Amino acid sequence: MTWIPSHDLPVSGSRFRAVYHIHAESSAAARAKAEDICIEETIEYPAELVPAGGIRDHIFGQIEHFDPLEEGGYRAVISYADEISGWELPQLVNVLFGNISMKPGIRLAELDLSAPLLARFKGPRFGVSGLRRLLGIEKRPLLSTATKPMGLSPAELAAMAYELALGGMDIIKDDHGLGNQPFAPFKERVLRTIEAVQKANAQTGGRTIYIPCINAPFEEMLARIEFAKAAGAGGLMLISAHCGLDFMRRVADDDSINLPIMNHPAFGGSYVLNPQTGVSHQAFYGQLQRLAGADLTIFPNYIGRFASFSRADCAGIALGCIQPMGGLATIFPAPGGGISPDAFADMLQVYGPDVAFLMSSNLHRESSDLAGTVRRYHEMIEKLN
Amino acid sequence: MTWIPSHDLPVSGSRFRAVYHIHAESSAAARAKAEDICIEETIEYPAELVPAGGIRDHIFGQIEHFDPLEEGGYRAVISYADEISGWELPQLVNVLFGNISMKPGIRLAELDLSAPLLARFKGPRFGVSGLRRLLGIEKRPLLSTATKPMGLSPAELAAMAYELALGGMDIIKDDHGLGNQPFAPFKERVLRTIEAVQKANAQTGGRTIYIPCINAPFEEMLARIEFAKAAGAGGLMLISAHCGLDFMRRVADDDSINLPIMNHPAFGGSYVLNPQTGVSHQAFYGQLQRLAGADLTIFPNYIGRFASFSRADCAGIALGCIQPMGGLATIFPAPGGGISPDAFADMLQVYGPDVAFLMSSNLHRESSDLAGTVRRYHEMIEKLN
Repeated sequence: MTWIPSHDLPVSGSRFRAVYHIHAESSAAARAKAEDICIEETIEYPAELVPAGGIRDHIFGQIEHFDPLEEGGYRAVISYADEISGWELPQLVNVLFGNISMKPGIRLAELDLSAPLLARFKGPRFGVSGLRRLLGIEKRPLLSTATKPMGLSPAELAAMAYELALGGMDIIKDDHGLGNQPFAPFKERVLRTIEAVQKANAQTGGRTIYIPCINAPFEEMLARIEFAKAAGAGGLMLISAHCGLDFMRRVADDDSINLPIMNHPAFGGSYVLNPQTGVSHQAFYGQLQRLAGADLTIFPNYIGRFASFSRADCAGIALGCIQPMGGLATIFPAPGGGISPDAFADMLQVYGPDVAFLMSSNLHRESSDLAGTVRRYHEMIEKLN
Repeated sequence: MTWIPSHDLPVSGSRFRAVYHIHAESSAAARAKAEDICIEETIEYPAELVPAGGIRDHIFGQIEHFDPLEEGGYRAVISYADEISGWELPQLVNVLFGNISMKPGIRLAELDLSAPLLARFKGPRFGVSGLRRLLGIEKRPLLSTATKPMGLSPAELAAMAYELALGGMDIIKDDHGLGNQPFAPFKERVLRTIEAVQKANAQTGGRTIYIPCINAPFEEMLARIEFAKAAGAGGLMLISAHCGLDFMRRVADDDSINLPIMNHPAFGGSYVLNPQTGVSHQAFYGQLQRLAGADLTIFPNYIGRFASFSRADCAGIALGCIQPMGGLATIFPAPGGGISPDAFADMLQVYGPDVAFLMSSNLHRESSDLAGTVRRYHEMIEKLN
């Protein structure tokens, strides 16, 4: 008997595309890798045992284009039937870059999803325009920072947040290492910081928001979010490499939460660091985070202490934040990692004005007058814009 | 004023260690990277602004050893205060490999957790001994397989599972690409497959278990698990790179679920593929999955169609599955990805008998008599053991 019949399948007719960059010793070898992707990401079964008919026609990935890349390597555009995603994000990502994440010489460069598939995802709840409305900032770049370091008490972190808000910081987030440690327990930290930011806002008439870091055991994730929401948090920071991209999507979709989401890139750098494997900066920090509902996507800037992302990598992220993706809102790139005002002008060239500068270390290095430094940064941005 | 006081901190006194492999142009440069890890994974703040006292003494990472590696590069053992993990898995992973995942030349090679920290984690619920008891298999390697390909109907997948169980397959799992697609909806697939496996078990007196793939939107993850449990599933397959390591931990810890967990490695390969970045095979597929409660950890074998993992990489995974980690149970490495019986003897050298061979493609290539092939594989393993 044969295990694989040739019967018809229920098909949607629409297909999504992924662009892969492939490295191999020859064009033929790269083409063979592209053909392998069509199998490995779908049937994961000997192709020679699959007869003509439904599965071969509708489940196999299909190479739509295959060309050499100017910078070396090859570009394969592969399409997949929408329905093999089950119209669900985890399985969609699974098709885009599942088993092939374990094969060398393959990089997911870009997503090109169909309109019917994109229509299943709400994406960012706020996006650039929603967040600008919320903050009351029309056109200029946003300024954001983190309260830190680990080891400070809730009162100390709150005092820092107060000064930063007094200076007009737009977004104050927890450092990503602040969880629920004994020296700054989550609830007390959130309550105190919100109180401090509200006090500063009352004095300045400003609209600084505080975004706590939500990085908790799963049993507590939603409870921490609800607590933060009830306490008056202005957004939520998730670390999608810890909680999963789809958990972020679930939080973004939840009408009862209704808060902007900032993605922190910790634990996820391994996807992008090596140019011949993993996922491109554009797709990983831009398109995927956006598809999963992030309104702001943090990453290390090309000028700063990380020195691992190039200017082109960061331009790719900026592109992923705004390139057409059905009705999905555009989002803010939030470059950080040791940036200083010297880089403002160049960064505006790369990101445009829809950017959230994330500055902490150098802000603290400048002076203990945090409010004064924030005011000065705003003046510098004002002049450049 | 100064923002960082020198007051005391509540400290546990215990510390956990991580071993990093560092690549840089000189010993001094590698040492500087190790020092950077101590800051980047903890305070993420200018060290020069932190006075002597609590934070410097108890929050900074500390280099315990620093040596050159025989194979090139350097080995840094860095310790962190237990309490900066908040005693929670996501933040623990965040400290071990958070921001430094975005810095080149740093690889997390091994975890060396303290007894108090390990005591907070239950780890694998079944482990090698529990799963052997459940399956009634004393000493021999386990045989496992996946029903596939995508595109088959629930009845067709179930018919395949029936034959495989009839032949004595120990574990039958869904292919990792089977989610909730229209051609094989989750519930119907699970019900039909369980029915088929139970029918075969009744005929053979065997104890084949069926492990469905749980890869769903977060709103449905627990519901699918509950459905599978109620229907009689013998375990659960999670894809931790999609759902998050801590979600797996949460499922493993749940007494009301009480099922063995198999981790599938899709989307996670980017962590291990490049030897100078990411996480070692031992730590990623072995230690971390085990800490998060996997009873079986799937990965591509060194002989097979992936050809991206070396024999040494796989031996590392085997080590991570059994090396002492407090009271955590040892677990089964489940090498797959195009293995055939030719490799059994060599694989037993690498993995020992506590291994679950995961075979599908080549099993189907041998003959359409799936039951017969499974019986023959068992005979071959019997002879080798």
